[in-house]
Amino acid sequence: MSTQDAEGLDVAAIREDFPILEREFNGHDLVYLDNAATSHTPDQVVDEIARYYREYNANVHRGLHQLSQEASIAYEDAHDRVAEFIGASGGREEVVFTKNTTESMNVVAYAWGLAELGPGDEVVLTEMEHHAALVTWQQICKRTGAECKYIGLTEDGQLDMDDARDTITDDTQMVSAVHVSNTLGCVNPVSDLADVAHDHDALFFVDGAQAAPNRPVDVEAIDADFYAFSGHKMCGPTGVGVLYGKEHLLEEMDPYLYGGMMIRKVTFEDSTWNDLPWKFEAGTPVIAQGIALAEAIDYLDDIGMENVKRHEERLAEYAYDRLTAMDDVDVYGPSPEQGRTGLVSFNLGDVHAHDLSSILNDYAVAIRAGDHCTQPLHDRLGVAASARASFYIYNTEAEVDKLVEAIEGARDLFA
Amino acid sequence: MSTQDAEGLDVAAIREDFPILEREFNGHDLVYLDNAATSHTPDQVVDEIARYYREYNANVHRGLHQLSQEASIAYEDAHDRVAEFIGASGGREEVVFTKNTTESMNVVAYAWGLAELGPGDEVVLTEMEHHAALVTWQQICKRTGAECKYIGLTEDGQLDMDDARDTITDDTQMVSAVHVSNTLGCVNPVSDLADVAHDHDALFFVDGAQAAPNRPVDVEAIDADFYAFSGHKMCGPTGVGVLYGKEHLLEEMDPYLYGGMMIRKVTFEDSTWNDLPWKFEAGTPVIAQGIALAEAIDYLDDIGMENVKRHEERLAEYAYDRLTAMDDVDVYGPSPEQGRTGLVSFNLGDVHAHDLSSILNDYAVAIRAGDHCTQPLHDRLGVAASARASFYIYNTEAEVDKLVEAIEGARDLFA
Repeated sequence: MSTQDAEGLDVAAIREDFPILEREFNGHDLVYLDNAATSHTPDQVVDEIARYYREYNANVHRGLHQLSQEASIAYEDAHDRVAEFIGASGGREEVVFTKNTTESMNVVAYAWGLAELGPGDEVVLTEMEHHAALVTWQQICKRTGAECKYIGLTEDGQLDMDDARDTITDDTQMVSAVHVSNTLGCVNPVSDLADVAHDHDALFFVDGAQAAPNRPVDVEAIDADFYAFSGHKMCGPTGVGVLYGKEHLLEEMDPYLYGGMMIRKVTFEDSTWNDLPWKFEAGTPVIAQGIALAEAIDYLDDIGMENVKRHEERLAEYAYDRLTAMDDVDVYGPSPEQGRTGLVSFNLGDVHAHDLSSILNDYAVAIRAGDHCTQPLHDRLGVAASARASFYIYNTEAEVDKLVEAIEGARDLFA
Repeated sequence: MSTQDAEGLDVAAIREDFPILEREFNGHDLVYLDNAATSHTPDQVVDEIARYYREYNANVHRGLHQLSQEASIAYEDAHDRVAEFIGASGGREEVVFTKNTTESMNVVAYAWGLAELGPGDEVVLTEMEHHAALVTWQQICKRTGAECKYIGLTEDGQLDMDDARDTITDDTQMVSAVHVSNTLGCVNPVSDLADVAHDHDALFFVDGAQAAPNRPVDVEAIDADFYAFSGHKMCGPTGVGVLYGKEHLLEEMDPYLYGGMMIRKVTFEDSTWNDLPWKFEAGTPVIAQGIALAEAIDYLDDIGMENVKRHEERLAEYAYDRLTAMDDVDVYGPSPEQGRTGLVSFNLGDVHAHDLSSILNDYAVAIRAGDHCTQPLHDRLGVAASARASFYIYNTEAEVDKLVEAIEGARDLFA
């Protein structure tokens, strides 16, 4: 396992756990700066997936045989491990495994929103929401007659809390906000937002897809009613997401996916529901993926989430400083002093972000280009797309230097 | 890879691919007969999962860098591979990756059912449906005012096609039936059911969870409008299911999960949808799982699905004959001559199936006990639960003998 020294993470040791980082393209070593889209997966997690299939694969909950017992214990314990990681004192009852953050949002939108929203009700989002929240609540509002409202941004690219206090009213039933913006890199004051929402008896949903991988999260300190994130952005596998919900809220909600395992009693006429969290996990669940997510959390906890956070912030500050030092580069979002996590979105002059990304790939520098599933935010920023470099535990300042060199190379090409 | 000889499958060679089968419990070699709950996963598939994470892990569709290109091609091609496997000539446009069969059903129930059903409409199921269909359509009918009807069984435990022709009427909007019953083991005449449904302009949904792993499936020969199954029952990983749908039907349906990747254009007011099948795959999809499913299909196709089918039928016949030869064992479902796939559900006298399963585990014989997510069918059969032995490509007649020996041991214990 990787260790930490006084200077921060022992990145060299960490990189040993990620063989994919040894890849080379076009005569260059891979510089992977697309971690906000997905992180890589350490050997420890891949090995656990293989161990599951080779040693104790079985369907869970329902079997009395040894393999099913072993798989059930590991899968159910994984829920407790996630609960511990995010400070959910209710344990597994408050942790639902979904397939991704997007499904976690849809669970609440369908199960709570379709039942509770109606004409005159409002759902308050932010202008920096990911499509996962934006499109979901728009469509649920369309069906129920409720209305979506948006909290705006300040001039320097942060959430406008004054506007939040104006926008959230007694008509507001739900406030949904990203903890960390996947485009601006800002860290939203989610605890303050929770207070405003709760002052108006609204619920508060936090999209933690970009926060849970990068910083300590305490859902009870935030006082979030719901908190969602994905395994694949935090050293875990694809195919597993998490929905945290306060136990009494999950108890009150009807399920949204119907099928086996989420029921207690079924007749030809009607059905009753299973206990939490299984009520929300219909069918054969994401067994190997949930177990692997718990392994990924062990991996991150060994490093220490405070250390992960500091490492990312240091890289973001370095990248921000180097990119803003380039006259023809526009960087979006707040300065590092204002609070910024490990990603930087930018544009190089008039060069389309897609073209820039393609050129950077010639240098084996992997970044994202596009709207990052925040089209309306890009409209606000006045650009169709942006380039985004995002960092994780295995990235280095030397890789940021390579990013800058590649951008300079692209500039020369387009000059 | 495993090969096939004149006698059938080369089971010894196949077993080499499944190291989990070497496990021992309680001084006995594992006899895994719970394949209808989940099959095991061969090394080839586990290795492909590991290769994905170690060599080309990336988010798909959105990245212009090399890793994302590689992952996207593999993930998108996996859809084509599934289409080819089930005879869907429309290719990837007709194949949606979900997390399991249950989600595949819910996609149609929500996206088609909520939009199309209303008072006076009927959804016709069978009395042998899995809870995945039963509970889902019950709840969608409750919301829409439509009504569920059920096709009954014949005396010998098969679908009553006369009753089907009576029950399906011009009020029927949807017929949903299992291709193979997970409790009775019977193979339903799905092509005939499709004809009856289409004669009344109803759609036809086939739950293929127990069929796709075990026999050649041709969705166009069946003329199914929708066909659903899961990866984990057919040598694939947990966390991936398939929804096949005729292209024009999927085109007409609105999506049900909202978020990134399923959209084309998003504003603060509204959104438009992406092309098929991505319209139905919101958020980061089940990338590693979809790729691994394609590998599992390669594995099964190398063996040959006709060979898999014959192997299962032979084991089912052998197990049926041995179990029915025991005076105090009740076996459910049709005889092998009437058509039966590789599973046998039964009870031993008055011994509760759970107790029987526990005793069998002392012999390292892994079977399922319970209602197999078909509570109403068990009510019809007049039993609370049953034991179920289900077979796959790596099982042998010698293992059926061990099952029978263990049942005899249990009988002695309870005598």
